[in-house]
Amino acid sequence: MQLTLHTDYALRVLIYLAMHPGQRVTITDLSSFFKISRNHLVKVVHELGLKGFVHSVRGKNGGLSLSKPADQIRVGEVVRAMEVHFHIVECFNPQKQGVCPIQPQCSLTALLGRANEQFLRELDEAFLSDVLLRG
Amino acid sequence: MQLTLHTDYALRVLIYLAMHPGQRVTITDLSSFFKISRNHLVKVVHELGLKGFVHSVRGKNGGLSLSKPADQIRVGEVVRAMEVHFHIVECFNPQKQGVCPIQPQCSLTALLGRANEQFLRELDEAFLSDVLLRG
Repeated sequence: MQLTLHTDYALRVLIYLAMHPGQRVTITDLSSFFKISRNHLVKVVHELGLKGFVHSVRGKNGGLSLSKPADQIRVGEVVRAMEVHFHIVECFNPQKQGVCPIQPQCSLTALLGRANEQFLRELDEAFLSDVLLRG
Repeated sequence: MQLTLHTDYALRVLIYLAMHPGQRVTITDLSSFFKISRNHLVKVVHELGLKGFVHSVRGKNGGLSLSKPADQIRVGEVVRAMEVHFHIVECFNPQKQGVCPIQPQCSLTALLGRANEQFLRELDEAFLSDVLLRG
Protein backbone atom coordinates (compact mmCIF):
# COMPACT_ATOMS: atom_id res chain seq x y z
CA MET A 1 0.00 0.00 0.00
CA GLN A 2 1.40 3.38 -0.92
CA LEU A 3 0.52 6.94 -1.84
CA THR A 4 1.35 8.12 -5.37
CA LEU A 5 4.76 9.66 -6.01
CA HIS A 6 2.84 12.84 -6.90
CA THR A 7 1.47 13.12 -3.33
CA ASP A 8 4.84 12.07 -1.88
CA TYR A 9 6.59 14.91 -3.80
CA ALA A 10 3.84 17.39 -2.87
CA LEU A 11 4.46 16.66 0.81
CA ARG A 12 8.22 17.09 0.35
CA VAL A 13 7.74 20.46 -1.39
CA LEU A 14 5.45 21.74 1.36
CA ILE A 15 7.77 20.50 4.12
CA TYR A 16 10.72 22.23 2.40
CA LEU A 17 8.74 25.48 2.20
CA ALA A 18 7.75 25.09 5.86
CA MET A 19 11.47 24.75 6.69
CA HIS A 20 12.20 28.02 4.86
CA PRO A 21 9.54 30.45 6.05
CA GLY A 22 9.64 33.93 4.52
CA GLN A 23 11.81 32.77 1.61
CA ARG A 24 10.83 32.54 -2.04
CA VAL A 25 11.84 29.13 -3.25
CA THR A 26 12.21 28.35 -6.97
CA ILE A 27 11.57 25.10 -8.80
CA THR A 28 15.30 25.07 -9.58
CA ASP A 29 16.04 25.17 -5.82
CA LEU A 30 13.63 22.28 -5.20
CA SER A 31 14.86 20.26 -8.18
CA SER A 32 18.53 20.52 -7.19
CA PHE A 33 17.85 19.95 -3.48
CA PHE A 34 15.63 16.89 -3.89
CA LYS A 35 17.20 15.61 -7.16
CA ILE A 36 13.70 15.31 -8.63
CA SER A 37 13.07 16.15 -12.29
CA ARG A 38 11.94 19.74 -12.98
CA ASN A 39 9.09 18.43 -15.16
CA HIS A 40 7.61 16.40 -12.35
CA LEU A 41 8.03 19.26 -9.87
CA VAL A 42 6.36 21.74 -12.25
CA LYS A 43 3.25 19.53 -12.28
CA VAL A 44 3.27 19.05 -8.51
CA VAL A 45 3.76 22.76 -7.80
CA HIS A 46 1.10 23.74 -10.34
CA GLU A 47 -1.44 21.54 -8.58
CA LEU A 48 -0.34 22.75 -5.14
CA GLY A 49 -1.08 26.27 -6.43
CA LEU A 50 -4.48 25.32 -7.84
CA LYS A 51 -5.41 23.63 -4.56
CA GLY A 52 -4.40 26.73 -2.57
CA PHE A 53 -1.40 25.35 -0.69
CA VAL A 54 1.30 27.51 -2.26
CA HIS A 55 1.52 31.07 -3.45
CA SER A 56 3.71 31.85 -6.45
CA VAL A 57 5.35 35.17 -7.36
CA ARG A 58 6.60 35.52 -10.93
CA GLY A 59 9.71 37.26 -12.24
CA LYS A 60 13.16 37.99 -10.88
CA ASN A 61 13.24 37.38 -7.10
CA GLY A 62 10.03 35.42 -7.61
CA GLY A 63 9.32 32.00 -6.22
CA LEU A 64 7.06 29.91 -4.08
CA SER A 65 5.95 30.15 -0.50
CA LEU A 66 3.27 28.51 1.62
CA SER A 67 -0.08 30.25 1.24
CA LYS A 68 -0.76 29.79 4.97
CA PRO A 69 1.53 29.27 7.97
CA ALA A 70 2.69 25.65 8.35
CA ASP A 71 0.77 25.31 11.61
CA GLN A 72 -2.47 25.91 9.69
CA ILE A 73 -2.02 23.25 6.96
CA ARG A 74 -3.13 19.77 7.96
CA VAL A 75 -1.24 16.82 6.45
CA GLY A 76 -4.58 15.04 5.91
CA GLU A 77 -5.88 18.00 3.92
CA VAL A 78 -2.85 17.79 1.58
CA VAL A 79 -3.16 14.02 1.09
CA ARG A 80 -6.92 14.23 0.44
CA ALA A 81 -6.35 17.00 -2.13
CA MET A 82 -3.34 15.57 -3.96
CA GLU A 83 -4.04 11.83 -4.05
CA VAL A 84 -5.70 11.05 -7.37
CA HIS A 85 -8.06 8.48 -5.90
CA PHE A 86 -8.68 6.25 -2.92
CA HIS A 87 -9.73 3.13 -4.83
CA ILE A 88 -8.29 0.81 -2.19
CA VAL A 89 -9.50 -2.18 -4.21
CA GLU A 90 -10.96 -2.36 -7.73
CA CYS A 91 -14.64 -2.18 -6.75
CA PHE A 92 -14.17 1.38 -5.37
CA ASN A 93 -13.70 2.55 -8.96
CA PRO A 94 -17.02 3.74 -10.42
CA GLN A 95 -15.85 2.54 -13.86
CA LYS A 96 -15.38 -1.02 -12.54
CA GLN A 97 -18.82 -1.43 -11.03
CA GLY A 98 -20.26 -4.85 -11.76
CA VAL A 99 -16.88 -6.31 -12.75
CA CYS A 100 -16.55 -8.33 -9.55
CA PRO A 101 -19.48 -10.77 -9.35
CA ILE A 102 -19.46 -11.08 -5.53
CA GLN A 103 -20.07 -7.33 -5.08
CA PRO A 104 -23.79 -7.69 -4.27
CA GLN A 105 -23.03 -10.05 -1.38
CA CYS A 106 -19.83 -8.39 -0.18
CA SER A 107 -19.36 -5.44 2.15
CA LEU A 108 -15.59 -5.23 1.83
CA THR A 109 -15.84 -1.77 0.25
CA ALA A 110 -17.60 -0.40 3.33
CA LEU A 111 -14.98 -1.92 5.64
CA LEU A 112 -12.05 -0.65 3.56
CA GLY A 113 -13.73 2.75 3.31
CA ARG A 114 -13.88 2.96 7.12
CA ALA A 115 -10.24 1.89 7.34
CA ASN A 116 -9.23 4.56 4.82
CA GLU A 117 -11.14 7.15 6.83
CA GLN A 118 -9.17 6.13 9.95
CA PHE A 119 -5.94 6.54 7.97
CA LEU A 120 -6.88 10.07 6.86
CA ARG A 121 -8.23 11.03 10.28
CA GLU A 122 -4.83 10.31 11.81
CA LEU A 123 -3.23 12.60 9.19
CA ASP A 124 -5.83 15.30 9.91
CA GLU A 125 -4.51 15.44 13.48
CA ALA A 126 -1.11 16.72 12.33
CA PHE A 127 -0.14 20.08 10.84
CA LEU A 128 2.84 20.50 8.50
CA SER A 129 4.66 22.23 11.35
CA ASP A 130 4.29 19.05 13.44
CA VAL A 131 6.40 16.96 11.05
CA LEU A 132 9.42 19.30 11.25
CA LEU A 133 11.97 18.03 13.74
CA ARG A 134 13.95 20.86 15.30
CA GLY A 135 17.65 19.99 14.82
CA MET B 1 -3.94 5.02 -2.48
CA GLN B 2 -4.66 1.37 -3.10
CA LEU B 3 -3.81 -2.18 -2.18
CA THR B 4 -2.07 -4.34 -4.79
CA LEU B 5 -4.22 -6.37 -7.18
CA HIS B 6 -2.59 -9.44 -5.61
CA THR B 7 -4.13 -8.62 -2.20
CA ASP B 8 -7.41 -7.61 -3.86
CA TYR B 9 -7.63 -11.02 -5.61
CA ALA B 10 -6.62 -12.85 -2.40
CA LEU B 11 -9.53 -11.23 -0.58
CA ARG B 12 -11.93 -12.19 -3.40
CA VAL B 13 -10.76 -15.81 -3.32
CA LEU B 14 -11.18 -16.04 0.46
CA ILE B 15 -14.61 -14.38 0.34
CA TYR B 16 -15.70 -16.82 -2.40
CA LEU B 17 -14.53 -19.78 -0.28
CA ALA B 18 -16.34 -18.31 2.73
CA MET B 19 -19.49 -18.17 0.60
CA HIS B 20 -19.12 -21.87 -0.24
CA PRO B 21 -18.34 -23.59 3.05
CA GLY B 22 -17.74 -27.34 2.88
CA GLN B 23 -17.13 -27.25 -0.89
CA ARG B 24 -13.87 -27.91 -2.69
CA VAL B 25 -13.33 -25.07 -5.11
CA THR B 26 -10.93 -25.34 -8.05
CA ILE B 27 -8.82 -22.65 -9.68
CA THR B 28 -10.93 -23.25 -12.81
CA ASP B 29 -14.08 -22.42 -10.80
CA LEU B 30 -12.47 -19.23 -9.47
CA SER B 31 -11.07 -18.22 -12.85
CA SER B 32 -14.37 -18.61 -14.68
CA PHE B 33 -16.41 -16.99 -11.89
CA PHE B 34 -14.19 -13.93 -11.42
CA LYS B 35 -12.90 -13.75 -15.03
CA ILE B 36 -9.36 -13.46 -13.67
CA SER B 37 -6.45 -15.19 -15.45
CA ARG B 38 -5.58 -18.66 -14.16
CA ASN B 39 -1.89 -17.70 -13.97
CA HIS B 40 -2.57 -14.84 -11.62
CA LEU B 41 -4.90 -16.96 -9.49
CA VAL B 42 -2.35 -19.79 -9.24
CA LYS B 43 0.13 -17.33 -7.69
CA VAL B 44 -2.46 -15.87 -5.33
CA VAL B 45 -3.72 -19.29 -4.20
CA HIS B 46 -0.18 -20.60 -3.79
CA GLU B 47 0.63 -17.74 -1.43
CA LEU B 48 -2.67 -18.12 0.43
CA GLY B 49 -1.64 -21.75 1.01
CA LEU B 50 1.86 -20.84 2.21
CA LYS B 51 0.42 -18.24 4.58
CA GLY B 52 -2.03 -20.79 6.02
CA PHE B 53 -5.31 -19.29 4.81
CA VAL B 54 -6.37 -22.10 2.47
CA HIS B 55 -6.09 -25.83 2.47
CA SER B 56 -5.65 -27.63 -0.84
CA VAL B 57 -6.57 -31.22 -1.70
CA ARG B 58 -5.01 -32.67 -4.86
CA GLY B 59 -6.49 -35.01 -7.43
CA LYS B 60 -9.98 -35.71 -8.74
CA ASN B 61 -12.59 -34.15 -6.44
CA GLY B 62 -9.75 -32.05 -5.05
CA GLY B 63 -9.82 -28.31 -4.57
CA LEU B 64 -9.46 -25.48 -2.12
CA SER B 65 -11.20 -24.64 1.11
CA LEU B 66 -10.59 -22.22 3.95
CA SER B 67 -8.13 -23.61 6.49
CA LYS B 68 -10.22 -22.09 9.34
CA PRO B 69 -13.87 -21.05 9.58
CA ALA B 70 -14.54 -17.60 8.07
CA ASP B 71 -15.40 -16.22 11.50
CA GLN B 72 -11.85 -16.93 12.63
CA ILE B 73 -9.96 -15.17 9.81
CA ARG B 74 -9.48 -11.45 10.33
CA VAL B 75 -9.43 -9.25 7.20
CA GLY B 76 -6.50 -7.31 8.70
CA GLU B 77 -4.53 -10.53 9.05
CA VAL B 78 -5.03 -11.29 5.33
CA VAL B 79 -4.03 -7.78 4.22
CA ARG B 80 -0.94 -7.73 6.47
CA ALA B 81 0.13 -11.14 5.10
CA MET B 82 -0.57 -10.58 1.39
CA GLU B 83 0.40 -6.95 0.82
CA VAL B 84 3.99 -6.91 -0.43
CA HIS B 85 4.93 -3.78 1.50
CA PHE B 86 3.54 -0.79 3.32
CA HIS B 87 5.97 1.81 1.95
CA ILE B 88 3.38 4.58 2.09
CA VAL B 89 5.97 7.04 0.78
CA GLU B 90 9.47 6.43 -0.59
CA CYS B 91 11.38 6.93 2.68
CA PHE B 92 9.69 3.84 4.22
CA ASN B 93 11.72 1.73 1.79
CA PRO B 94 14.96 0.56 3.46
CA GLN B 95 16.66 0.66 0.03
CA LYS B 96 15.79 4.36 -0.37
CA GLN B 97 17.22 5.53 2.93
CA GLY B 98 19.12 8.78 2.54
CA VAL B 99 17.58 9.54 -0.87
CA CYS B 100 15.33 12.29 0.50
CA PRO B 101 17.56 15.01 2.02
CA ILE B 102 14.94 16.31 4.47
CA GLN B 103 14.62 12.92 6.18
CA PRO B 104 16.75 13.89 9.24
CA GLN B 105 14.44 16.86 9.97
CA CYS B 106 11.16 15.22 9.01
CA SER B 107 8.89 12.95 11.01
CA LEU B 108 6.41 12.24 8.22
CA THR B 109 7.31 8.52 8.28
CA ALA B 110 6.26 8.24 11.93
CA LEU B 111 2.97 10.02 11.23
CA LEU B 112 2.18 7.91 8.13
CA GLY B 113 3.17 4.78 10.05
CA ARG B 114 0.62 5.62 12.76
CA ALA B 115 -2.01 6.29 10.06
CA ASN B 116 -1.28 2.94 8.40
CA GLU B 117 -1.59 1.22 11.77
CA GLN B 118 -5.06 2.81 12.20
CA PHE B 119 -6.02 1.53 8.74
CA LEU B 120 -4.98 -2.04 9.60
CA ARG B 121 -6.50 -1.89 13.08
CA GLU B 122 -9.90 -1.18 11.52
CA LEU B 123 -9.46 -4.25 9.28
CA ASP B 124 -8.44 -6.36 12.29
CA GLU B 125 -11.87 -5.68 13.76
CA ALA B 126 -13.62 -7.59 10.97
CA PHE B 127 -13.65 -11.30 10.22
CA LEU B 128 -14.16 -12.69 6.70
CA SER B 129 -17.64 -13.76 7.77
CA ASP B 130 -18.48 -10.12 8.59
CA VAL B 131 -18.08 -8.99 4.97
CA LEU B 132 -20.61 -11.51 3.63
CA LEU B 133 -24.02 -9.92 3.17
CA ARG B 134 -26.83 -12.41 3.58
CA GLY B 135 -28.99 -12.15 0.46
